[in-house]
Amino acid sequence: MHKVFGDMLSGNCYKVKLLMEFLNIPHEWVHVDILASETHTGNFQKMNPNARIPVVALSNERYLWESNAILNYFAEGTHFLPSAKYERAKVLQWQFFEQYSHEPYIATARYINKYLGLPKEREAEYHGKQAGGHKALAVMDKHLAQNQFFLGTQATIADISLYAYTHVADEGGFDLSDYGNIQRWFKDFETLPGYIKMSGGVAG
Amino acid sequence: MHKVFGDMLSGNCYKVKLLMEFLNIPHEWVHVDILASETHTGNFQKMNPNARIPVVALSNERYLWESNAILNYFAEGTHFLPSAKYERAKVLQWQFFEQYSHEPYIATARYINKYLGLPKEREAEYHGKQAGGHKALAVMDKHLAQNQFFLGTQATIADISLYAYTHVADEGGFDLSDYGNIQRWFKDFETLPGYIKMSGGVAG
Repeated sequence: MHKVFGDMLSGNCYKVKLLMEFLNIPHEWVHVDILASETHTGNFQKMNPNARIPVVALSNERYLWESNAILNYFAEGTHFLPSAKYERAKVLQWQFFEQYSHEPYIATARYINKYLGLPKEREAEYHGKQAGGHKALAVMDKHLAQNQFFLGTQATIADISLYAYTHVADEGGFDLSDYGNIQRWFKDFETLPGYIKMSGGVAG
Repeated sequence: MHKVFGDMLSGNCYKVKLLMEFLNIPHEWVHVDILASETHTGNFQKMNPNARIPVVALSNERYLWESNAILNYFAEGTHFLPSAKYERAKVLQWQFFEQYSHEPYIATARYINKYLGLPKEREAEYHGKQAGGHKALAVMDKHLAQNQFFLGTQATIADISLYAYTHVADEGGFDLSDYGNIQRWFKDFETLPGYIKMSGGVAG
């Protein structure tokens, strides 16, 4: 059985959990406490030298890290990842958008606010994340005005990647009330069979 | 013929150029001047609502953005992208590492220094990028001590993604003299048939 090393309140880890629930993949969840620096031990860095969660152990020798790479691995051959070349590249396009233009603003603001308690020395950084986050949300909202899910009528791992931190963006100070298409997409996503809420764990 | 919208001195655009030269894919290069805000026109944002280069026009209706998604599209079925599921996921792992843990430090420091001329108001940000950049370089150097290329003896698009900004990291203030394995990898990469240097264009 695959072991997943992660924290259920981290959006990057939650992505993996969601796909495994959608696809009913048996797995063992091993909680990692990032605030206690558990990703910085020698044993952990044998799995991921970049010292981040999530990590999936496929065997004693094969470890995979980076949430979106893990999603592509497990989604292959399922309806969460199209087989056509262009559509698969579009899934990756939205996943790279998520990691570069969305996560560093929305997830980081949430982390500073929710987990660190918005300490004085990070207030400027926190406020500096707002413009970039809203830019990403606007790109998403516009796309979702024309599309039920990111790739059309079928939910894919692009939706999983973007849902994970967007649906808790309020915890990073982002008011989503102006993004009607994103809110409609939340509802469609949350009715997918196997959907579970983000829960448990310690840190994000 | 595919049109590629980009700037040859941007590492993200150079990735696409490198793969097209390695694979001998005919294409037309359309220069985009980001310092003149050419990515912020209505016409450009019809191609990429996220207002970034590179963008590839596959047809009048099909546009693909995000450099690493473009690489996956064109590399499919070639020796630059393994066909086995685990190896393909490892390529993605390194590409997501590049966009999240490498590019925001090394490419951004280079941009602030080389293109903006290290203005006073961005000096603190510039210096703040150094630790993260060296962390990424250390992860790469350690991996390359055991591997000729990122996936073993065959160069893949993971190498293209990581080479693009690493080989000009000195322009962001990163001294690479302590990273002997990265320097050895540069030499191996630069002997691949079709290799061209980064050149032309205006902004990175």
